[in-house]
Amino acid sequence: MRTVIVGGVAGGMSAATRLRRLDEAAEIVVLERTSYVSFANCGLPYHVGGVIEDRASLLLQTPESLAARFRLDVRVSTEAVSIDPDRHTVAVRNVVTGETSEITYDRLILAPGAAPVRPPIPGIDTAYALRNVEDMDALAAKVATSGSAAVIGGGFIGLEIAENLRHRGLHVTVLEAAPQAMAPLDPELAELVHRRLRDNGIDLRLGVAVAEVSPTGVRLADGGEIHADLVLAAIGVRPDSGLAETAGLTLGRGGAILVDDFGRTSAPDVYAVGDAVAKRDALDGSEVLVPLANTANLQGRRVADHIAGAALPFRRISGTAIVGVFGLQAAVTGWNEKRLVAAGRPHRIIHTHPTNHAGYYPGASGLAIKLLVDPETDAILGAQAVGEEGADKRIDVIATAMAGGITASGLADLELAYAPQFGSAKDPVTMLGFVAQNLREGLMESIQWHELEGALAAGASLIDVRSAGEFADGAIPGAINIPVDELRDRLSELPDGDLIVHCAVGVRGHTASRILHAAGRRSLNLDGGYRTWEAATA
Amino acid sequence: MRTVIVGGVAGGMSAATRLRRLDEAAEIVVLERTSYVSFANCGLPYHVGGVIEDRASLLLQTPESLAARFRLDVRVSTEAVSIDPDRHTVAVRNVVTGETSEITYDRLILAPGAAPVRPPIPGIDTAYALRNVEDMDALAAKVATSGSAAVIGGGFIGLEIAENLRHRGLHVTVLEAAPQAMAPLDPELAELVHRRLRDNGIDLRLGVAVAEVSPTGVRLADGGEIHADLVLAAIGVRPDSGLAETAGLTLGRGGAILVDDFGRTSAPDVYAVGDAVAKRDALDGSEVLVPLANTANLQGRRVADHIAGAALPFRRISGTAIVGVFGLQAAVTGWNEKRLVAAGRPHRIIHTHPTNHAGYYPGASGLAIKLLVDPETDAILGAQAVGEEGADKRIDVIATAMAGGITASGLADLELAYAPQFGSAKDPVTMLGFVAQNLREGLMESIQWHELEGALAAGASLIDVRSAGEFADGAIPGAINIPVDELRDRLSELPDGDLIVHCAVGVRGHTASRILHAAGRRSLNLDGGYRTWEAATA
Repeated sequence: MRTVIVGGVAGGMSAATRLRRLDEAAEIVVLERTSYVSFANCGLPYHVGGVIEDRASLLLQTPESLAARFRLDVRVSTEAVSIDPDRHTVAVRNVVTGETSEITYDRLILAPGAAPVRPPIPGIDTAYALRNVEDMDALAAKVATSGSAAVIGGGFIGLEIAENLRHRGLHVTVLEAAPQAMAPLDPELAELVHRRLRDNGIDLRLGVAVAEVSPTGVRLADGGEIHADLVLAAIGVRPDSGLAETAGLTLGRGGAILVDDFGRTSAPDVYAVGDAVAKRDALDGSEVLVPLANTANLQGRRVADHIAGAALPFRRISGTAIVGVFGLQAAVTGWNEKRLVAAGRPHRIIHTHPTNHAGYYPGASGLAIKLLVDPETDAILGAQAVGEEGADKRIDVIATAMAGGITASGLADLELAYAPQFGSAKDPVTMLGFVAQNLREGLMESIQWHELEGALAAGASLIDVRSAGEFADGAIPGAINIPVDELRDRLSELPDGDLIVHCAVGVRGHTASRILHAAGRRSLNLDGGYRTWEAATA
Repeated sequence: MRTVIVGGVAGGMSAATRLRRLDEAAEIVVLERTSYVSFANCGLPYHVGGVIEDRASLLLQTPESLAARFRLDVRVSTEAVSIDPDRHTVAVRNVVTGETSEITYDRLILAPGAAPVRPPIPGIDTAYALRNVEDMDALAAKVATSGSAAVIGGGFIGLEIAENLRHRGLHVTVLEAAPQAMAPLDPELAELVHRRLRDNGIDLRLGVAVAEVSPTGVRLADGGEIHADLVLAAIGVRPDSGLAETAGLTLGRGGAILVDDFGRTSAPDVYAVGDAVAKRDALDGSEVLVPLANTANLQGRRVADHIAGAALPFRRISGTAIVGVFGLQAAVTGWNEKRLVAAGRPHRIIHTHPTNHAGYYPGASGLAIKLLVDPETDAILGAQAVGEEGADKRIDVIATAMAGGITASGLADLELAYAPQFGSAKDPVTMLGFVAQNLREGLMESIQWHELEGALAAGASLIDVRSAGEFADGAIPGAINIPVDELRDRLSELPDGDLIVHCAVGVRGHTASRILHAAGRRSLNLDGGYRTWEAATA
């Protein structure tokens, strides 16, 4: 029984090693078109930046080590040129010698990964990309003789590369076509990332279209020119499904290989895993493209299980992800507000600004967290967190809660590890549960930053319940300052009509809104307070 | 409607402020016997150690600030002397003036907290304790003139205090009656904490009984004497339920106040919350004593909700907790092996030794993780993690998974935030799920460190599949070294009978056990490998 695997990195290699552990007698052939297998894809930008000094540390395995440990027949520099599903054969070509041959399979696993998106911009082919070890070596060599760089694309990879080029001393311009970087974040959280980039010397240009690329820079659609010794395209990736398409396999959204819950493609005995396949969304079951190593690894493992006779399905995908940007963590899981709005799906929004651990313990730093909740079922729809530290932990906890079916209000009941250097007696996740419960039970009505203008135009008044000192340091135009501690004695000063209260983050605003409620006044608490509003409207 | 609250720290103050937000008209009186309310209990050791320099940062609120913000009638230095449940009155005494009076209540909330355990050791009353701000001030003053300290008790608080006394330059001896410190950990993980303490100059004495305490030191039951300028008792805490007991309220395990799921005691209109009450265990519903601020806060909030007419129950308790010891994190949730054994409850054990994030990214550090699993249902029964970084995150994720009913094998399907500086493409939690699945499906049989001796005595052979270099650096007595990569070619060298294989942490051991299985040999993989065995048998 011979299994042939196309692609020797995350998903392909996980399938190969797992299959060996399940079946000592299997013949396992891995075809990898580059010279390297099982390399640490996610580490590539950090070697370019000099953060990971030892290049060899990224090369986790060699064909020799894999043969010794797992009796794998790993063939590097070997490209799968075509598949004949009827004859169960793969045509291969040695990319060094040009020699071609054919290999038969009993089972075939496609793990070709994703390829950089290359939009039809003149000269785009002259831009560098960073997909594999060869790309990394070429880029690192270029960086050594460059003083400036233009990075096209402000997503996860673009920002990781931008940071690393900056570490190497280059002047770096990031060009992003959308009005914000980091699309998985909603704009008011993305703004925190923008600031971190700019504070670290990145020239971040948002909402700019690239008209032409050349070896000496980029010309923008608005006529602007950016000189750069090095241009790198990190516009995104697409499923590298050409081989599958040519073989007549059914493709899905965005050209991804369509697979069932066990990784089976439309061709008998042909599986596919990883960045090249369409995943299923955890919320609505739709096809999604989420190119991440952890899911690729798990899918590889599950396909090996299936070939060996087991039947655990692929997981559904929430798109949990994280990026580090000059010491700032930005992490997400589930759907964001933009996507919920686009889908017309009802949602409740909660913004908080807690510290990562007890404020009185040295080194506490701020977090901005956003939780999206189904107003009918109280289900958690998604979350985002940005901060120096602890954003990863909170997103992992929320992702786990979502997987376990814990509701937003139910977050209040989580028993999380607390000591002052690691968390708070009221952990940021627990606090989200408290707010969700308050909203669900109608103890608080909140209003979002983007609803404020309309509400004020409709006649509501804005009451800033922070201290006079905070108010003086910066306030929302038109706000009346009545500190919460004085509110009970100054009710008579309040204007008629609906009241919108706000403080710095929303906590005092909640207390104020309860006081106003008791006084018979309708009030809305500005969600996330001044801090969310300030970032959103910057 | 008057609510009287006895105790003005975590649970009591959470109840008071929540009740105000729910009921602007309520009369709320808080009785606090010390001079301080709402102080940061968990920060006290760190002020003694100089880590938290600003004493005022621990004093989160004052009676004045609470009156202004929440219209609370907070009476400090006011002790509740007795309760008359029939008459709905509390007799109070001003501890400064000695003046006594009586206050009536419609609802009473008892939040007296926990008191230090004081076993009947001669002189124990001369030992310092650390329960409140007054204790902290007295201890800090004593530390300033002391060169040495003996800390009786190696639990969470004892170790936090020991670390902080060491920070202040004292020679510190920790005296623990049990054979291990940190009782919530099983011994092979506690050993990692022992080493960290000793590496930082703590004189840790395990299994020693204190016979007598004096202002100049401690005499041990074995006749030994330890001179110390300062003796501190951190033997544990007990529910401070004297007031409740005298009033005839029903007590439960360990003298804790017995409450129902909504915090109601046996007396009408009398609630109790926090460290003084018996909680319900998440696993078996039994009464447990888990004195932690986060649960106290939540219970306070829930009692306020109940008084105001809502009906969310108290959560069941997994005992999730964490302590920092000289930069090492030790975190736990659920039941440990000791408790499962004592209860005769079947369990499967998994030890792993992953890194906190991708090994190729600078700064990766080791974690030791232990997972306890119900072999029938695959339910997670508990977990422990010790390491420099990321133990908190993994325990929080596992605690959340337990709350959400995710099985041990189901951990493999969690989608956790991955980038090389924050985790691994195969996260430590995901890996636990892989191992759990392998055990559940019978792909691997494992054996625990404490079962090894018996198995060898019964005729099994031990095969160390690490490299020759690792073997030379230290090996388990009697082990035969055959590196995993040579195993297939050296099967004929294996002795007859059952084989126990081991590597450093268990991963290569698993591969080896699969090779042996295919060769028709029964083999058991030593769980956690050499690393767990070495710590356990140290």
